[in-house]
This record gives sequence, C-alpha cells and structure tokens, in this order.
Amino acid sequence: MGANVNPNQPTRTMDVENPGPPGAASSGGPAGSNDPGLRGVDLSTGWVVTAQQSVIYDVRLKDGLFDVHHRDLLEVGSGRRSKRLRRFVVVDETVDAIYGDRIRRYFAAHEVETHILTLGASETKKTMESVLAVVDGIDAFGISRRHEPIIAIGGGVLLDIVGLAASLYRRSTPYIRVPTTLVGIIDAGIGAKTGVNYSSSKNRLGSYFPPKVVFLDRTFLASLEPRQLSNGLAEILKIALVKDLRLFELLEEHGERLIEDRFQDNTAAEEVLERAIHGMLEELQSNLWEEHLERLVDFGHTFSPLLEMRALPSLLHGEAVNIDMALSTALSVGRGLVSPAEGDRILSTMRTLRLPTWHRLCQPELLWDALQEVVAHRDGLQRMPLPVGIGVATFFNDLQRSEIDEAVELLAAGGFR
Amino acid sequence: MGANVNPNQPTRTMDVENPGPPGAASSGGPAGSNDPGLRGVDLSTGWVVTAQQSVIYDVRLKDGLFDVHHRDLLEVGSGRRSKRLRRFVVVDETVDAIYGDRIRRYFAAHEVETHILTLGASETKKTMESVLAVVDGIDAFGISRRHEPIIAIGGGVLLDIVGLAASLYRRSTPYIRVPTTLVGIIDAGIGAKTGVNYSSSKNRLGSYFPPKVVFLDRTFLASLEPRQLSNGLAEILKIALVKDLRLFELLEEHGERLIEDRFQDNTAAEEVLERAIHGMLEELQSNLWEEHLERLVDFGHTFSPLLEMRALPSLLHGEAVNIDMALSTALSVGRGLVSPAEGDRILSTMRTLRLPTWHRLCQPELLWDALQEVVAHRDGLQRMPLPVGIGVATFFNDLQRSEIDEAVELLAAGGFR
Repeated sequence: MGANVNPNQPTRTMDVENPGPPGAASSGGPAGSNDPGLRGVDLSTGWVVTAQQSVIYDVRLKDGLFDVHHRDLLEVGSGRRSKRLRRFVVVDETVDAIYGDRIRRYFAAHEVETHILTLGASETKKTMESVLAVVDGIDAFGISRRHEPIIAIGGGVLLDIVGLAASLYRRSTPYIRVPTTLVGIIDAGIGAKTGVNYSSSKNRLGSYFPPKVVFLDRTFLASLEPRQLSNGLAEILKIALVKDLRLFELLEEHGERLIEDRFQDNTAAEEVLERAIHGMLEELQSNLWEEHLERLVDFGHTFSPLLEMRALPSLLHGEAVNIDMALSTALSVGRGLVSPAEGDRILSTMRTLRLPTWHRLCQPELLWDALQEVVAHRDGLQRMPLPVGIGVATFFNDLQRSEIDEAVELLAAGGFR
Repeated sequence: MGANVNPNQPTRTMDVENPGPPGAASSGGPAGSNDPGLRGVDLSTGWVVTAQQSVIYDVRLKDGLFDVHHRDLLEVGSGRRSKRLRRFVVVDETVDAIYGDRIRRYFAAHEVETHILTLGASETKKTMESVLAVVDGIDAFGISRRHEPIIAIGGGVLLDIVGLAASLYRRSTPYIRVPTTLVGIIDAGIGAKTGVNYSSSKNRLGSYFPPKVVFLDRTFLASLEPRQLSNGLAEILKIALVKDLRLFELLEEHGERLIEDRFQDNTAAEEVLERAIHGMLEELQSNLWEEHLERLVDFGHTFSPLLEMRALPSLLHGEAVNIDMALSTALSVGRGLVSPAEGDRILSTMRTLRLPTWHRLCQPELLWDALQEVVAHRDGLQRMPLPVGIGVATFFNDLQRSEIDEAVELLAAGGFR
C-alpha cells in the first residue's frame, strides 16, 4: 500500500541529520541499532529536523463563474465524483445582496447540497469572532475535508477571514477564493495571506495559507462604485510604476475609460488585469512567506499605513497608498531618479484614475514617524522602494528627514515643473 | 542589496508557470511585454503559482537548561547580541509552582528583561481564549519578532497553546519549546503541531508551526508522578512496538527502574529517551504536514480517542493508547501476525510500565464505532497499523467486526496462552 498523496496537495522530501557519529541517521532505527555500546547522540547535542513543503495553487480567469453551464467551481478539489456534491459557502453580505440569488440558483441547478453563510465583512468585523463564526458554520454543516473545499466569495476582508478559518480548521482545510472587488482580483485575493485585526492592530493575527484555486471573474466589477474601482487601480498603478512601463502606459491612456466601463470593455481592461495580476503573482511567488524584507510590493506602503489609520474613515486603502506613491515619486524627483517630466506624467495618471495625490495629514513630522515605524518592521533598515524612471524601482536605506520636507513642498505645489 | 535571509529561517525556490504561449513567464514583465498584440493568457486559463518552503528546526538534549552557567536558551534565534536581551516567556502554572524561582533566577542572572506569563494548561483550558491571553501578553510586552523568540515551558497542552499563538501572531513569530513532561519530551513537544480544543472537539483548531528549537531537559522528569511517567512510557512503547525491537527490550528489562528513578539514572534512561525521540522524529519528519494517511504513529490511536473521551477523566491519554495497543496486539495474535508468546511478552511489559491493558468500556460495539469514526478521518480506509512480531507494523484495511469480538475475548482473559 503506497502513501496516499493527492497530486494537488503539497509534497515534500526529507532527510534526518543526526550530529552524532556517522551512521546515526541510518534508516530503520536510531543510532547504534546493531551496536548497543554506540550512542547515536551525545547528550550535549541532538537532532536537526528538515522538511520541505511544496505549495501549488491555481489562479484562473473565469468570467461568468456562476453561469449555470460552467462547472469549474465545482470541479476543484472534489477528488471523487461518485456522491452528491456538498459545499460550505461563505458570502460577503454586500455581495449576497446583489448576487445572492444567482449564486443560489447556480448551486441548486447543479444539485449541490449547500450551506451559505452570509457574513458582514468590514474592517471592524475583521475579527477572530468572525473567524469562529465561520468555524461554527463548518462544524454545523460538516464537511469531508478532502473532497469538499470551502468556497469564499467576497472582497479582501471576507477572503482574509475565511482563509484564516480554513487554515485553522483541523490545522488546514482546502478552500477556494472568489474575489469580487478589483483589489481582491489583482491583489488581496490572489496571495497566500489570511488575517484578522486584533486589539486595534491591522492583521495582527493570521497565517500564510494559499487557497487551492482562485477564480477571477471580471463580471463582478460591473456592480462596483467608481471610487472602489479607483481604490483597486491604485494597486495596479503600483505594479506599473515598480515593474511594468507598458502597464503604466495603458493606465495613462485608458484609465478614464476603465472606470467608466467598469472593466467590462475588452480593449484595455483584459490586458490591464492580466499584466497587473501577472506582475503581482511574480512578486508573491518569489516571497510567499514574506521572508525577504525588500519587497517591491511595499511601494506605496511606507507612509500609507499611518496615513490611512489617522485619516480613518476618510481614506480608502488604495487612496492612502496613492498619496504615499505620490510622495515617493516626489522623493525620487528630489534625488534625480525620476525626471520632473516623468513625475508629472505619474501625477497626471493618478488624477486620471481619480486618486488623491495629497492629504492635509502629509506633514513631514508625521511622515518621518511613519518611516521610523516601518524601519522597525523591516528589521532596522528603511528598505524603501523608490521609482527610478517609470516601470523600475530600487531600494534605499539612506532617506533623510530634509528630503521629506522637500518632497512635501514639491507635492504641495501640485507638480514638478 | 541582497535579500535578507536568516540561515535558520525557511528558504524557498520558485518559478512561474503560465499556461499561455511560450515566453509568458519571462522575467521582468508579463507575457508579451514586447509584443502588445500577443496575449500571455487566454481568458479561459490563468496561472499556476508554486513555491517551496524549507522547514528546519533543532531538537537539542540539554540537561540543566536553567543552570545559570548555561546560555543555550538565550543564544537561540537572537541574531544580534548588541542590545540587552528581552524575552517573553510562558510557563505552565504547575511547572511554575516547582521551577518558577529557578527559572526567574536564570533570567535575572543573565540580565534578561523578561515578562513571565503563567498559564493554567489543562485540557479544559486548551482554548482560543488561552491563545489570545498569550497574544495579549506579547502585545503588552512588545517583542522584536526577529530577535526575541517566545519561550514556552510546560507540558504538551501548554506547548500547543503557545505554539498556536506564535503561529498566528503577525502570521508567524519564532518560538522555543521546553517540554517538561515525559510525553512532551518524546512526543507532543518535538513535532510541528499546535492546537486548541473547540466546541468539544479535540484540537479542532490549530496549525503546523515548528519551533526554532526544542530543548529537552531530562531533569524536569524528576518531579513527575509515577502515573505521568507511565503515561509517557505508553508513547515510548508505541515507537518500540512499531519500529524498534531494541527499545522494546530496554523497556521490558528496565521499565520498572525507569519509573522508580524517574529517568534520572543514566544506564537505560538515556538510551530509551534517545531511541524514542529518534524513532518519533523519523516519523514526524517524513510526514510533517500529515498528508500521508498511513502513519505508524497512529498505532494505539484507533480505538483510544473514543475510549479516552468516554472514560473522561478516568483515563490519561497514554493509558487509553495502551489499552488500544493491547487490543491491536490481540487483533494481531488473532491474525497470526504476532505469536501468543510475543503477545504475552507485550502485555507483560505493559504491566511492568504500570499501564492498563483493559477497560470496562472495551466492548466490541463501541470499538467498532471507534474504528468507523477513524475510517472517516483516514479518507475511507481503515489504514490500521497492526504489529507484526515485535518492532515491526503493517497497515491493514480489511479488519472485520468478528475479529474485534475475538480480540476482546482474548484480552479479557488476560493473556494469549
């Protein structure tokens, strides 16, 4: 009887090292199995345990995921098809209000036995209590852990909550993510992070636990408010500025239309989404457990956490990120890394995307404090990504307080030329 | 500036697969970076994200860990030595009552700024509330996540609680385990599992999150009650029966003395502990995330979960496991896998270790129910490890109800010959 390994599950290789005498790690028994006088381990030492976990997950583009003739959502992680399908589904209450009937019709049409838990998923409800509500729901419905993946449908907050519940339940239960917001589709929904807020700290508790599959269905964007679209476009612009000039050019040219058509028009929307997702996945994949502290995706995330928190509830996350990116651009202009003309192109594109480039809280004192907080999280160095031209960024550790003063002054003037 | 990788941290390798046209995964940009007409991804497909995490941790034998002249505990995971040491320490309240002064003296002597949180750690207190109490303590004390590992000192329950808190805190915070019970030293303390009970299910919520280092200090065993030693000896016997004849012989010959001397005598104690730990680590390492369902360490864990729960609080975990192992031995005798003489040797050694081999709940009906519950957890098959002689075990899927009837009858008679 061979080991039962699901090809979609992580695999691993291993070996035992024992710092004792040679032969200590021989298979089938401990050191000295055949020599009672030989001790495998000196009492001052011990063992080194090593194991490797391979993580693999799919990010699939699937417009019309809940069209009755599509079975994609039901075919993931099921393993066997003999029995009647059962699924535990968690839906964001905002999504449920708009798409609830359609989602229920979909499962009914496929004769799936379903429990749909509707969850309020705002930042204030991003708590361990919400995680336990999901756990209670799973417990009450009962699921076969290997054949009935949990399905999460909603924005970044909902996906974070359900991801943490799935991660904790029986130490890991497979789940599927269906992000319904632009931020979810291009950023929060496609990575491995889960989390909740705790004692007034954002994402203080969480895990790295990728879903089996993420389904990206662009048609959800049709019901988003323009401000929510701009919020997501800030994270797309981030990817563009640090690594993809072509993506920047697309935003510059088509930004206005992307918002007006809510990404439902095929000309630029498809390419923008694909490039943004691809760029983000490259960064995520190479640092899935966030052990490298120099992260391009931290661009726009140096000053913004404090700005966002102080301005609550007036700034959305993407808006705070954009103000940070505008400040960072000004810092780059100050250093001569970005020309004034390039700087103005960036600011102008931000305005096209209906994103703020300034906030009354942008005071050098506060920004310097924000930088110091980030330094503590980045193990003592600034590791600050700054744009070099458009589409490239580099990390810096030597930012001075005077440069922030100058950047604020430049930006307050509304342009670089 | 190279990536900042701590050599003791997991490392990983990665590559991007994009099921689109060749070149889609070229570095530096998404598919078709230089050819706007070429689409990297067809809308019916997407991406596959893969990443590998290498886990490495030390299991170190260190008697007298809290002797003032030993610095081992303070040198782990610290990284830099410049500043004054700070440590957040969680101690089981039972351990604190006996060793608290010594532990405090140790940290004081090394001028470590310490917050010691004392935690009641019984099965009934193995809850998410206890996990959050640890989180609150960490938050109040404040720690540098990269240089101040959390230290957990106690039995399996305490280590499970603190491990889960460390796993959740900022999505993973390094910690050190110091098991103080025999079960902790040879089983619960040396693996990667964390967990708490939830809604009357054992370990319903948890994670796989190995510590940086486990320190095994045998001198803690000197204060254990004989019944607690027997409790741990059941798990040692388990390893002996499934994979280590020499270990069995040591238990058979020295079992009585091991309990009397509380493992403080060097002759057999050292070898018994080393073989038990080595054997357990081999099994853990090859299945750290428990994806293989055929697990030798499940021996004794088929009937025992239900027995232990139904008998609460009369049976300790190891006692229930031992009754299960006695039943499994009887099943093997019934199948001719273990001779009656070998079966009697096993039972006799169990008695030497002061472990029960029978309980009034051992009724075929209940045992059959227990087996069915386990089948559900093992994805539809029994995958039941049974001894084949002494020191070897094999998995079986075809156990019949009638065999359980016979095994109960055999065992009730008190012996096989």
